[in-house]
Amino acid sequence: MSDEKPKMTLILFSGELDKALACFTLATTAAASGFEVTIFFTFWGLNVLKKGGISAGKKNFLQKMFAFLNKGTSSKLPLTKFNFAGAGPEMMKMLMKQKKMASLPQMMKAAREMKVKYIACTTSCGIMGVDRTDLIDDVAEMAGAASYLAEAKNANVNLFI
Amino acid sequence: MSDEKPKMTLILFSGELDKALACFTLATTAAASGFEVTIFFTFWGLNVLKKGGISAGKKNFLQKMFAFLNKGTSSKLPLTKFNFAGAGPEMMKMLMKQKKMASLPQMMKAAREMKVKYIACTTSCGIMGVDRTDLIDDVAEMAGAASYLAEAKNANVNLFI
Amino acid sequence: MSDEKPKMTLILFSGELDKALACFTLATTAAASGFEVTIFFTFWGLNVLKKGGISAGKKNFLQKMFAFLNKGTSSKLPLTKFNFAGAGPEMMKMLMKQKKMASLPQMMKAAREMKVKYIACTTSCGIMGVDRTDLIDDVAEMAGAASYLAEAKNANVNLFI
Repeated sequence: MSDEKPKMTLILFSGELDKALACFTLATTAAASGFEVTIFFTFWGLNVLKKGGISAGKKNFLQKMFAFLNKGTSSKLPLTKFNFAGAGPEMMKMLMKQKKMASLPQMMKAAREMKVKYIACTTSCGIMGVDRTDLIDDVAEMAGAASYLAEAKNANVNLFI
Repeated sequence: MSDEKPKMTLILFSGELDKALACFTLATTAAASGFEVTIFFTFWGLNVLKKGGISAGKKNFLQKMFAFLNKGTSSKLPLTKFNFAGAGPEMMKMLMKQKKMASLPQMMKAAREMKVKYIACTTSCGIMGVDRTDLIDDVAEMAGAASYLAEAKNANVNLFI
Repeated sequence: MSDEKPKMTLILFSGELDKALACFTLATTAAASGFEVTIFFTFWGLNVLKKGGISAGKKNFLQKMFAFLNKGTSSKLPLTKFNFAGAGPEMMKMLMKQKKMASLPQMMKAAREMKVKYIACTTSCGIMGVDRTDLIDDVAEMAGAASYLAEAKNANVNLFI
């Protein structure tokens, strides 16, 4: 493994701001340190990739209801604790701004510039009622668990967030 | 490592339907791709292995109370979000059925047919008041963290879910 | 890798008692089995390292508010489920005592005696409004994601808890 670039895969299962921040801090730091990085977005993690707004894609009633409850977009994620109907994340964002830290959308931009690969899990998209058109263009691929395993198998670091 | 089968270990700590689905999607896909797969069930993840019903084993008052609050079985798991007193998981199960996806019990059956090994964590069983007799017969072993580490040490992919 | 000690890194992101117990059970078992173990404490996981009491360090209003909501210390962590305003963790601690299991503070003591290394994430400290002086003396280092990746890159087992 000495000649090749080190490799990291992250599964982002959670849709909370704090976990997304952890995921993208790891991803951008790894990319900046020369790692090849792939993030697999599954279940609630797909919210981070959503364009926002109610999807226009064809959905049946159940999918619509789930999509409505679970609107997402990277600028409106809740916290795992102290969410207070959205006041918690706003407080955290203000703190980060005061400390001149990068926001989640800024980190996501940096990640893409450093070639971090985004894969959206097809199975989760089915369960969550998410279409390709609901997601931002930065998504490189729609793929299943087999593609994940092919990458994770030879990676140095694999985490489930 | 080139001659041997690739290997994956999963620690299922969480007892929610969505996390269990992620765990068993990874496990069955890996097994189908030739991986040797072991799942360690700890804490709330033990709920996935419960036969259901109130345990008949000998328990003291505290253990009984915990066991009652935490009844489990793979067909009655909550969601990490939008649980709505059980309506959320039912909605997700209906969506999966519409999409002709395998349910959690079907995935667990497939996993066992492909020799995915189930280990129940003895320490967690102690804390959670769970006996061997509370668990389904598919559990291969009751073991502690040392057995986990012996397997994870040489595995390609290790995840904590 | 055959001559060297096996290595494990754990990221403790969560601040709940059950997850902290899982983390320190793995850490102490691994250290006892000859692993070199490093734990990176990020976000809510920093609570496990807090001395307790309201911090005396210089903080602005937002940081103070966050620090107040998020008081922490290893003896007052909530559970991910069945917290019941603190009754759940007390019940779990009583059960563990009955079973003569080590408590979290006891495990943390054992971990330090076996040279498990504690690193507190500088970025999270910034976001959460935590100062070095808020944390117990066992913390070996304050460091960022780059230090984590340098260790995780060559480790056998890497988990995100």
